[in-house]
Amino acid sequence: MKQSLFFAKTRKESPKDAVAASHKFLLRADYIDQLAAGIYTLLPLGQKAHQKLLKIIREEMDAIGAQELLMPALHPKAIWESSGRWEVYKGEMYQFQDKSKHWFGLGPTHEEIITAIVASRVSSFRDLPVALYQIQGKFRDEARPKAGLMRGKEFIMKDLYSFHATKEDFDDFYNKASEAYLRIFKRCGVEAFPVLASGGAFTKDMTKEFMIKTKAGEDITLICEHCGWAANKEISANVSKNCPVCKEKVSEHVTLEAGHIFHLGTRYSEKLGAFFLDENGKRQPMIMGCYGLGTTRLLAAIVEVHYDKKGIMWPESIAPFDIHLLALGKDNKIKQEAEAIEGHLQKEGIGVLYDDRDISAGEKFADADLIGIPLRVVISEKTLGQGMVEIKYRKEDAARMVTRGELINIAKADLNRVNN
Amino acid sequence: MKQSLFFAKTRKESPKDAVAASHKFLLRADYIDQLAAGIYTLLPLGQKAHQKLLKIIREEMDAIGAQELLMPALHPKAIWESSGRWEVYKGEMYQFQDKSKHWFGLGPTHEEIITAIVASRVSSFRDLPVALYQIQGKFRDEARPKAGLMRGKEFIMKDLYSFHATKEDFDDFYNKASEAYLRIFKRCGVEAFPVLASGGAFTKDMTKEFMIKTKAGEDITLICEHCGWAANKEISANVSKNCPVCKEKVSEHVTLEAGHIFHLGTRYSEKLGAFFLDENGKRQPMIMGCYGLGTTRLLAAIVEVHYDKKGIMWPESIAPFDIHLLALGKDNKIKQEAEAIEGHLQKEGIGVLYDDRDISAGEKFADADLIGIPLRVVISEKTLGQGMVEIKYRKEDAARMVTRGELINIAKADLNRVNN
Repeated sequence: MKQSLFFAKTRKESPKDAVAASHKFLLRADYIDQLAAGIYTLLPLGQKAHQKLLKIIREEMDAIGAQELLMPALHPKAIWESSGRWEVYKGEMYQFQDKSKHWFGLGPTHEEIITAIVASRVSSFRDLPVALYQIQGKFRDEARPKAGLMRGKEFIMKDLYSFHATKEDFDDFYNKASEAYLRIFKRCGVEAFPVLASGGAFTKDMTKEFMIKTKAGEDITLICEHCGWAANKEISANVSKNCPVCKEKVSEHVTLEAGHIFHLGTRYSEKLGAFFLDENGKRQPMIMGCYGLGTTRLLAAIVEVHYDKKGIMWPESIAPFDIHLLALGKDNKIKQEAEAIEGHLQKEGIGVLYDDRDISAGEKFADADLIGIPLRVVISEKTLGQGMVEIKYRKEDAARMVTRGELINIAKADLNRVNN
Repeated sequence: MKQSLFFAKTRKESPKDAVAASHKFLLRADYIDQLAAGIYTLLPLGQKAHQKLLKIIREEMDAIGAQELLMPALHPKAIWESSGRWEVYKGEMYQFQDKSKHWFGLGPTHEEIITAIVASRVSSFRDLPVALYQIQGKFRDEARPKAGLMRGKEFIMKDLYSFHATKEDFDDFYNKASEAYLRIFKRCGVEAFPVLASGGAFTKDMTKEFMIKTKAGEDITLICEHCGWAANKEISANVSKNCPVCKEKVSEHVTLEAGHIFHLGTRYSEKLGAFFLDENGKRQPMIMGCYGLGTTRLLAAIVEVHYDKKGIMWPESIAPFDIHLLALGKDNKIKQEAEAIEGHLQKEGIGVLYDDRDISAGEKFADADLIGIPLRVVISEKTLGQGMVEIKYRKEDAARMVTRGELINIAKADLNRVNN
């Protein structure tokens, strides 16, 4: 893709209210555009990176036997009343009337909807377990949106729901989902760890949050480095300074929440009529779990872990392109060589952003550092003279000269490593 | 995918209010679930078919140089006021206040948002043209939702917007987009033809609708079979019975609208400040076009063209699976053979729904006809005895016996044909 045709315009300055690194750099490198406080567009660069993230999430959800569907965002009041949450969610859910004076809410979460869908299709223990997920725009009436994609009024989420005949089966799937989450974070280049948390408006039971250690985090987590026990501050208010398991000293960390998984028990299945006949023919409510992961939030969290003062340093698995190809100088031979290399790489399935713009070398280098594509390739009079190209990884300092054939092999090997 | 694990439950009856074939069959075969009038979930079968449709649309959009982004659904009142459409869209757009008493609307279309995005990034004729599209849930306060996915309060749409320096450049892209639409419809197995139409709330200019001839259509179109002139009833009110071009007799058709493309001129660019400097350094408003295609609506339209009294007959390009594999009988050898074939086909990248359920052969055949996967493969005692499998295309009457090797080759050839 020629950068002169690509819809992205980098900026030297970011708005004053942008404090978090991800907010600043995603705006400056033109991954996102702010429409209003907490409301953003994913521009072509952002859309590409987000789609790569979604591909990883879908693969890991499918691998644990979850099936994808897509539920609506417009929810009639009645179904939220049957769970008793229409009133509870006032102030957090956008609620309004259509022109026929019927009330609707914009779904901030989908327990009611999914439970009704499963209730009308599952009748026997033989139909269970069921695990269904969606990737969808979500809406929350957030009074204080902040930090760009981190906390908004509209955002994208992967939400998974599971239904089980027994607590053992639920526990088994809960563990599988937890492991899938850890694999997702690892493949996205961030290290997350599960901590005990409270369930907020969802449940009174203990839940599990997945936290990423970053400077832009908003939660305090207590961690016992000795035995691995971890909990958020709310849970551990009574813990003082010692681990409740091994009695060793715990330490405080600022970390960012990236996912949250819940044991919902039979709360929703009882209220929405999701019953089944067990092996003895006895009518039982299904046992439920729900598993949330904010995908636009995770995109921002990845940047919080991978940046330096010059800009973003994407992990290869998420970068919008694999290679940033810079042609320096006006000589036609340079352009011809760059185009030949671009064509060759693309034929191998390697994504290339080719900077063909008529601007200075300094501006091209600065943009490449800001946008953060993992491998930078430079073609200039100097490299042409040597019959080589210059390559440099965004995360490394040293550049080196390689032949065109070597470049292709390196790029193919990098791509293979990410895909396998 | 084993059907015993797949989340879909077919029904013998459809709701009384379901009149259109697509509405009836998509409900009965469990592609969709109705939450409220005009509000549906895409269940796993529906999600799979819809994703295949989106892949085709993305390929054709990318091929004409359009780039994908994703805009928000929550729009602040101010931006709709700058175009003068906040009042115009009352009654059609859901409009409400957040808890800070700020007004928002749920975007039924995105001219205002995209124009503001482009305005802040394009300054010179050198930056033009720009073509951007998104695939996104849309909301319209529809008083009389009907026919399932055909006309709803919430639906999914591909909307493309283009920005140009000259009318010639706009015309050129408008024709390219029009051809891309025709390719999309063809690849989805429906024949669409462009007709002249009015612009509704969008524009006073003439526009182009893409109509599909179906029994479930809601618009009358006049067509001149002689010279090819075509227009919708509204436009052609003055035409009486003769073509305005060649004076031959025109005929009336009930057809379904599947896409709509507009010349917006400089209406939005002037109001939202999307100006550029032309070659002479003169400030000019950009010339705009917009190009809509309802993707969930198109999914229904495809069914309207491809069904018989037993159910859906998907085109290969859209079907949720390529092959429906039916194992008949309880003999373990039948199951072993079916599983071996499923594994073999999947290794070749062929999507298989394997009906391993403990129900009668009659029920399996009826479900296969209803769900509408293009190729049915049966393994039974009879086929095992002959060392063969029975295959039958959904659109053909005759079944025939082939060897396992022949089946693989046939399935691979079918898949290749669709992909190229």
